[in-house]
Amino acid sequence: MENFEFFNPTRIIFGRDTEKKIGKILEKDDVEKVLFVYGKSSIKETGLYDKVVESLKKEGIEFIEHGGVKPNPVLSHTKEGIEKAKKYKVDAVLAVGGGSVIDEGKTIAVGAKTNKEVWDFFRRKREIKKALPVYVILTLAATGSEMNGFAVITNEETKEKLSISSEHIFPRVSILNPELTFTVSKQYQAYAAVDVLAHVIEYYFSGQYCPNLQNRLIESIIKTVMETTEIILNEPHHYNARAEFMWASTIALNGLTRLGIKGGEFPNHMIAHSLGAIYDLPHGACLSIVIPAWMKWYKDKNRTQFERFAKEIFNANTAEEGIDNLKAWFKKIGAPVSFKDAGVPEKDMDIIVDNAYNIAVVWDMAQKYTREVLTEILKNAKD
Amino acid sequence: MENFEFFNPTRIIFGRDTEKKIGKILEKDDVEKVLFVYGKSSIKETGLYDKVVESLKKEGIEFIEHGGVKPNPVLSHTKEGIEKAKKYKVDAVLAVGGGSVIDEGKTIAVGAKTNKEVWDFFRRKREIKKALPVYVILTLAATGSEMNGFAVITNEETKEKLSISSEHIFPRVSILNPELTFTVSKQYQAYAAVDVLAHVIEYYFSGQYCPNLQNRLIESIIKTVMETTEIILNEPHHYNARAEFMWASTIALNGLTRLGIKGGEFPNHMIAHSLGAIYDLPHGACLSIVIPAWMKWYKDKNRTQFERFAKEIFNANTAEEGIDNLKAWFKKIGAPVSFKDAGVPEKDMDIIVDNAYNIAVVWDMAQKYTREVLTEILKNAKD
Repeated sequence: MENFEFFNPTRIIFGRDTEKKIGKILEKDDVEKVLFVYGKSSIKETGLYDKVVESLKKEGIEFIEHGGVKPNPVLSHTKEGIEKAKKYKVDAVLAVGGGSVIDEGKTIAVGAKTNKEVWDFFRRKREIKKALPVYVILTLAATGSEMNGFAVITNEETKEKLSISSEHIFPRVSILNPELTFTVSKQYQAYAAVDVLAHVIEYYFSGQYCPNLQNRLIESIIKTVMETTEIILNEPHHYNARAEFMWASTIALNGLTRLGIKGGEFPNHMIAHSLGAIYDLPHGACLSIVIPAWMKWYKDKNRTQFERFAKEIFNANTAEEGIDNLKAWFKKIGAPVSFKDAGVPEKDMDIIVDNAYNIAVVWDMAQKYTREVLTEILKNAKD
Repeated sequence: MENFEFFNPTRIIFGRDTEKKIGKILEKDDVEKVLFVYGKSSIKETGLYDKVVESLKKEGIEFIEHGGVKPNPVLSHTKEGIEKAKKYKVDAVLAVGGGSVIDEGKTIAVGAKTNKEVWDFFRRKREIKKALPVYVILTLAATGSEMNGFAVITNEETKEKLSISSEHIFPRVSILNPELTFTVSKQYQAYAAVDVLAHVIEYYFSGQYCPNLQNRLIESIIKTVMETTEIILNEPHHYNARAEFMWASTIALNGLTRLGIKGGEFPNHMIAHSLGAIYDLPHGACLSIVIPAWMKWYKDKNRTQFERFAKEIFNANTAEEGIDNLKAWFKKIGAPVSFKDAGVPEKDMDIIVDNAYNIAVVWDMAQKYTREVLTEILKNAKD
């Protein structure tokens, strides 16, 4: 087991009706004015917006609205949020939504406390020293952003999709009510499932040594994600399935699953980010295209683990069968597994490779993921 | 899945040589004077004491020693520590040892910040409002105290073994170096294994509903504990086995495994605490006696879960076989499974029942665990 450090101070409030507590939670923390960050109009349609407003008003908490966050949150809109946070001198950020809203909220929290260019933190030119406290009400279980110190933003001008990582952006409190995900469409549930699986399998496969305990924890999450997704696709209002999926998605990327693993990288996310930056495809859809392609390329570098995966998850015998089964499962739940499925033109291959390579440079992975290697991987995703 | 709240702010520094960081960690937190709490002379024999002192001195951190903590830490010695902490106005407590040392350290941290009788917190007459920060260097992986807000102390006068629970006593930082457990004897490794298993199976069996995700996480820990204990008993210096066991023991009782379970109690601990209070037996030895006895009494109240356990852990078919296999495994690793094994006189039955019943009253479990029920359970442990 490799040396590691683990720290995760986010307080989770999980369960039915918990969103009504937001006013009291903020009041207890002496928050007087928040930037209320959200996405499209869906939180208004579901009634969540009204509930949040009611809870805030009840405790006398002022709020400045910052709606309209996009699914792949963009830098320009984030900067507008930073300006508002500064102008109105808010004490905290309240992000009500999925990973995109939380990530934009976290970035605003960082930007509000500095006069420096916020994109510099993403380019890793500058270290994050402070941020406003972030509070979350989660409406889409997928990214794990509700309990980690990461945020991903797309710079539309440069077509870069990059991330920040800091202890200062762990949400202070995250409210997780599985009922708020009842309205997540089948398509987005499929993407979410792929995203969660991707979070746990990156290190599991790409690490040089994965302790058995970690193998087991990761496989527990994989089994739960697959089991509950199948239930959810049939019964979108199944509370326990939504709840288990939600909590599985949170612990998949809260730091726990990667502890003690030797080596390990996020190659699938790296390539998927490039697809997401260029085509504005949902993150999960990018991943379901990339993962089987990457696995096909990588499998012989860690055959034992691929065989373990095949056995544990699909009761299959070979690495190849494990990959085929996973690809078939992605198809079954309605996630694309090729460029063709997602309508990505094959002629764009070089553009995608270039973009992915640029991320590889920022992530310090360019030595392994050269343009040639990236081309080889992406060719596996043609159809 | 039941509503829950999860919060665990302890920072874990895990791995080889990490104990040397203690001085720097305290210095960074502006700690100038600590109460250095430890047990018997073993940390002096292993050289750990010298390493800690060197690290503290290097950073100019003053320390007041409070050694001699007993395996079942007692109130009188804890009170001496509280007096020292107050007299020397320490900023923090540094506990170097296993669960007993940490628990006494936590209690001192509470006592140092109040002029009230510290035992009142254990009798749940008073709520803990503050405590000194606690830092830990772990030398025995078992209790999970290094990453939770619990502490157990024995009042020798009243023969009560009671616990406190508070967010204020989560260790600020816990240093976990598996190498420091190389010298843990085979006997104590066996007790530790039983203790960790006990931490995860209490809710798993006694809950009315256990989500599949939690079932899987718990079974992952059980399998890891059993697998690594067998390796450790053969090869005490096996780093990875010690490391996986250590981390499994930490996450077994850091709050994660019980989330979302409906109902759930700690009946085995309740009864084991009474044995520990009366006979000063190691906690793990008390548990290995109690668990099979309790299971035999309880199994028909939750047969499905006992059958699941039998299948998952032992590939056995019936609830009874699962229990028999577990009891046999306890025996195999050298843990006692009856009063006879542990030298507890059968004639003391009424005294044990009375003591356990008193804990049941404090823990609000006396309605279910009447004297009659406790007698019935304990009779299963006769031989």
